[in-house]
Amino acid sequence: MTKTEDIMNIATKRGFFFPAGEIYKPIAGFWTYGHLGTLMKHNWEDLWRKYFLGLSTNYFEIEDVNIMHKAVFQSSGHLDNFNDPLIECKKCHFRCRADQLIEDSVDISTDSLKEKEMEDIIKKSKIKCPNCNASDFDKVVWFNMMFDLKVGVTGNDVVYLRPETAQSPYIAFKREFLALREKLPMGLAVIGKAFRNEISPRQGFFRLREFTQAELQIFFDPENLDKADNWNRIKSYKIRAFLVKDKRINEISCDELNKKLKLPKFYVYYMAKVQKFYLDILKIPKDKFRFRELSETERAFYNRIHFDIELDLETLKGFKELAGLHYRGDHDLGGHQKGSKEKLEVNIEGKKFIPHVLELSFGVDRNIWALMDIFYKEEKERTLFKFNPEVSPINVAIFPLVRKNKLPEKAKEVFELLDQEFTCSYDETGSIGKMYRRMDEIGCNAMITVDHETLKKDSVTLRDRDSLKQIRVKIKDLKEILKKFLEGEKLEKLGKIV
Amino acid sequence: MTKTEDIMNIATKRGFFFPAGEIYKPIAGFWTYGHLGTLMKHNWEDLWRKYFLGLSTNYFEIEDVNIMHKAVFQSSGHLDNFNDPLIECKKCHFRCRADQLIEDSVDISTDSLKEKEMEDIIKKSKIKCPNCNASDFDKVVWFNMMFDLKVGVTGNDVVYLRPETAQSPYIAFKREFLALREKLPMGLAVIGKAFRNEISPRQGFFRLREFTQAELQIFFDPENLDKADNWNRIKSYKIRAFLVKDKRINEISCDELNKKLKLPKFYVYYMAKVQKFYLDILKIPKDKFRFRELSETERAFYNRIHFDIELDLETLKGFKELAGLHYRGDHDLGGHQKGSKEKLEVNIEGKKFIPHVLELSFGVDRNIWALMDIFYKEEKERTLFKFNPEVSPINVAIFPLVRKNKLPEKAKEVFELLDQEFTCSYDETGSIGKMYRRMDEIGCNAMITVDHETLKKDSVTLRDRDSLKQIRVKIKDLKEILKKFLEGEKLEKLGKIV
Repeated sequence: MTKTEDIMNIATKRGFFFPAGEIYKPIAGFWTYGHLGTLMKHNWEDLWRKYFLGLSTNYFEIEDVNIMHKAVFQSSGHLDNFNDPLIECKKCHFRCRADQLIEDSVDISTDSLKEKEMEDIIKKSKIKCPNCNASDFDKVVWFNMMFDLKVGVTGNDVVYLRPETAQSPYIAFKREFLALREKLPMGLAVIGKAFRNEISPRQGFFRLREFTQAELQIFFDPENLDKADNWNRIKSYKIRAFLVKDKRINEISCDELNKKLKLPKFYVYYMAKVQKFYLDILKIPKDKFRFRELSETERAFYNRIHFDIELDLETLKGFKELAGLHYRGDHDLGGHQKGSKEKLEVNIEGKKFIPHVLELSFGVDRNIWALMDIFYKEEKERTLFKFNPEVSPINVAIFPLVRKNKLPEKAKEVFELLDQEFTCSYDETGSIGKMYRRMDEIGCNAMITVDHETLKKDSVTLRDRDSLKQIRVKIKDLKEILKKFLEGEKLEKLGKIV
Repeated sequence: MTKTEDIMNIATKRGFFFPAGEIYKPIAGFWTYGHLGTLMKHNWEDLWRKYFLGLSTNYFEIEDVNIMHKAVFQSSGHLDNFNDPLIECKKCHFRCRADQLIEDSVDISTDSLKEKEMEDIIKKSKIKCPNCNASDFDKVVWFNMMFDLKVGVTGNDVVYLRPETAQSPYIAFKREFLALREKLPMGLAVIGKAFRNEISPRQGFFRLREFTQAELQIFFDPENLDKADNWNRIKSYKIRAFLVKDKRINEISCDELNKKLKLPKFYVYYMAKVQKFYLDILKIPKDKFRFRELSETERAFYNRIHFDIELDLETLKGFKELAGLHYRGDHDLGGHQKGSKEKLEVNIEGKKFIPHVLELSFGVDRNIWALMDIFYKEEKERTLFKFNPEVSPINVAIFPLVRKNKLPEKAKEVFELLDQEFTCSYDETGSIGKMYRRMDEIGCNAMITVDHETLKKDSVTLRDRDSLKQIRVKIKDLKEILKKFLEGEKLEKLGKIV
């Protein structure tokens, strides 16, 4: 089995995630988070929220509806431009993405190709239909990826499911700017669903039709683009940046990025913060992280500066986009001001301007997959996820050694005690060895066993998932010891290995 | 201004919630949570999650997609039965709900009326079109309230936005039952969006087209319907129940509900737990809470027992439904087993059966509105929300007395210190009186002022929102004192009133 299959197998069997509606015929690109996946996703979202909203006292989260006005997407440009190139086989009427069809068959980049150019390549290279093998395709047409639906009873009111969470802060900007007492920078985050009618979603859990984004839109005065509070604290911090000019990862200090590459300080400051989120908070190994600069043909015209945040994922054969950092200028508020005819210009101490936007955009589901890819390990007698306690779905598992002699009752007491403070699981359905393996498999950090000595001496064993080592701990000290262990203290320092 | 207008005014101005997409023409029934509303909604959801998932070690949350198979709603009955009666004025083509039209004009209950019966009443009572005053209506037709859309590129694959979160646990039941090691009762909760294309949504924030539900589906062995663990702990607990037979609120012990009213113990146990959630966790005054028994014509045919949970809301002129407790029998798993042809029967120690479902269903947005209704107070010189710390969006506000003499810097230090542990806000944009009023208005519990004495003696004032009393606290003791205050300790016990 491939690593992808191994992870998928555990994910679906143990309740991380599984295809949505699988008792019916599942539809590609829709997945359900099971009980473990939900715990893990909440962990990730809470870490993100705490970290990024903690960057300023003027950064807040809002929650918007998924169904939005047609007018919103007229102003944002999605109605006109949010398209994928669709091609249909004339013989069997199979439809697929023209650019994917090309890239799957020949070594040509399809970035920014026009319809005609794609048609020509398909013809010249005699590319065949993946379904019926014929090579007679219809013209390339642009297929809009937004889901449309109708609201109300007349059938005339077309609305859309948002294809990104970003529009919500833009259209709520005015209201929140007033509520938050007219200060910039102001940050509005959304953690929520987005919907894209992908022509043919691939890559399993990595490209979904309904997915979760965590995005922070920072509105700021463009005059302050080359300023950053606390610049001194990060200026010598080194960013891992893969640049267009030399196509390799450079380790460049923030100061150099600013001075030599002319990236403005406000942008570079958030590069540093994003990198620290991945390396320090999510504990991603440094060599698996990079910023990738997008070339002019790759990036959207409104993104004045655009780096993707990529992680090196074995299951996806290289560095893949998990997030993006986009300096969008006045494209968003300018567009909505024009479209809505509401004044979105601000007036700060007499200076009138349209705030610019820096967007931090993260694909939550992709991040969950990336954690599973990076922390999955196979050992001789077990598989495990070496999740850090901060992201692991379960931190502490409690078992009775055997299912008799009042050990289950005692183990449940211990569970009750710990469950108030830690994310715990109780299990008694198997031999102790099996129960350990099951908990290793889902990445549980610490395992507590209640045995016969517990009844006599009120102590339990505490086992470390990674080292397999164990210590004995008095129940009265258990909370304290567990806390230290989950904060990163080595087991050896907390007791004698038994 | 009415109380509804007062609350709406604060909600929209201060960032609790506002009509979605209001810079364009807002669509009825869609609202955005601003930064304060999002904090408060998260508080409510966290309290719900902690309380209800804490009722068993086998209760977990899952997270599903909003877009679901047509087949799901064929099995659930929504495609056939999830309809509202729609009527159109022949003259001006205005469309509205026939039942609402009747109830707005004449004193007749429309529960379970057929099309023809409604048409007759409208004709006989000469009810007029609310739009053009004519009284010539077309026939009543049934309008399905689900939003439909198309997935993929063929245009043939119709899918739906889920009209309730409940179906997600039902179709994930098999997968989770295996992952959770085949034990009953098993609980699967979802906190998520649901979508209903209401014909004409009214009641502002209370009836939405896109809304959040928090639902717990408990799957159990029907043989255990009249059993409840810990029955002894709740059997003399008194439930406030409004019964069909006498149409008044009775205070009846759980034991009596079981013995005299023949309500099964498993159901009554959850009545007690739900009531405790409202009275003990959300701190709703007892006289504003009741269970309302639904008559046979009111309740869905598959609900064998159905009580609504209602709160008395001044803004909505009486007791209104906020949640429901439904014993649904084998309707759900039975229906999906039939529709999907997947076996959803379980086999527990040789006994084969389809688990029954007890559903705890809560409308989150309605609950938020109810808290605002119940805790809103007007006093001579201020308005305030007397929110408990557990639900209040902001617990602690920190101000400098004046915006000079290094007081803002010191106040920010205090903010940094407290923000790690409490939900805090910093403000310096106004006189101290104004800043207090603003924080009262959003229901902030405690206010800290940094004044000139702070610089000399390292102490601040702590003001109680409700009593307006203040004490002086050393900064080094501030966290501890605040913690006790927010846990409910009287200010007088924490220091000398100044």
